[in-house]
Amino acid sequence: VIVYGRQPVRELLAAGRRPVTRVWATPAAAREAWLAGAPVEQSDAGAIAARAGSDAHQGVCADTAGYPYVGAAELLGAADAFLLALDEVQDPQNLGAIARTAECAGVTGLILPERRSAEVTPAACKASAGAVEHLRIARVRNLADFLGEAKRAGLWCYGADGAGRHYTEVDYTGGLVLVLGGEGKGLRPRVAGACDELVALPMRGRIGSLNVSAAAAALVYGILQEKSAP
Amino acid sequence: VIVYGRQPVRELLAAGRRPVTRVWATPAAAREAWLAGAPVEQSDAGAIAARAGSDAHQGVCADTAGYPYVGAAELLGAADAFLLALDEVQDPQNLGAIARTAECAGVTGLILPERRSAEVTPAACKASAGAVEHLRIARVRNLADFLGEAKRAGLWCYGADGAGRHYTEVDYTGGLVLVLGGEGKGLRPRVAGACDELVALPMRGRIGSLNVSAAAAALVYGILQEKSAP
Repeated sequence: VIVYGRQPVRELLAAGRRPVTRVWATPAAAREAWLAGAPVEQSDAGAIAARAGSDAHQGVCADTAGYPYVGAAELLGAADAFLLALDEVQDPQNLGAIARTAECAGVTGLILPERRSAEVTPAACKASAGAVEHLRIARVRNLADFLGEAKRAGLWCYGADGAGRHYTEVDYTGGLVLVLGGEGKGLRPRVAGACDELVALPMRGRIGSLNVSAAAAALVYGILQEKSAP
Repeated sequence: VIVYGRQPVRELLAAGRRPVTRVWATPAAAREAWLAGAPVEQSDAGAIAARAGSDAHQGVCADTAGYPYVGAAELLGAADAFLLALDEVQDPQNLGAIARTAECAGVTGLILPERRSAEVTPAACKASAGAVEHLRIARVRNLADFLGEAKRAGLWCYGADGAGRHYTEVDYTGGLVLVLGGEGKGLRPRVAGACDELVALPMRGRIGSLNVSAAAAALVYGILQEKSAP
């Protein structure tokens, strides 16, 4: 696949999780220090746009392997797991934005269902500013079943739902999974039912809901804040 | 101006802050209950796209007045002010996303500089899901000068900056202004210097910064969480 954009290609090279067979860069981009040692071939912006299938390439793209998803079991085994699961988030921009927030906050893994979910496409890589190269991301066949496994592994599962308890009234001690619903529809009933507890951000305005990537940022940092409170 | 999209037009009508002279809707959209009483004229998707200048119209657009900015002094006078100021945020998608989060969280006003800032264009209205129709937004000539006025009015000014104190170690009692920097450059030195305190979200990953709309969500809800902590 072709990963494009300065931050995505830089983090692709820095993380070293996928082999990079070639990088195409404009003469200006090719001079940047972070490309030293990479298999760079000079190209022009039009040819890079054609390879990337996007005008958002910022003068650089790279040929690499498909995204290296990890196994879900690997994420469950981590000490102090703080996992984020997305129930049918379909917009690659939202997936990328959430992956960036998750990586910055120290989330230990992201879980996506195999079907009806955005995947880690080059557009999602771009939207994540390359964060997906460092974050561990797993795909699961059935998200409700995965939450069952997580509970058996000793994690607590919190689903974001407007009908849930105020998110600051909940105890987040220990390993956990936070589950966010898809754009405009929230958690599916079976997924909500598989959670130990439903939690809600306070809504004080006239607009009824946050964008899913804003909700992810508020809840991920909010839970870390609660966990570290004296 | 032409506001487009289902939520933007619905909230435009619901808020009643701008006169709506006409709404164009596809036959399917025209039957929706929230359009009852509005001056609707049936149209086809192509003609609506041409009026809106966008394919993201969802079958409806409305002719209305320019965005009704309020005066900054009005925002300073509110009891328990919780203002959000954006220092040269330039992407209308980010402005819209931040406005949506601000409205949902109960932020009492948003401040934008007149120059080098995204404005409340129809694209920003769409990205905000119509939240801008309810939120009070002011433009100021000079953001650092505005922060000086805010401090004289008794508000505390907190600037988001990676070099600041951990945001949970700060006392947020009383009225306040939270200031966020523009995409990729953060706060300008004079704006940072006009703040009472700089605060930072913890960054635990390899990617050095959050997207500004994610930072807004995490900090706005985080400050509310600190304010309500026992």
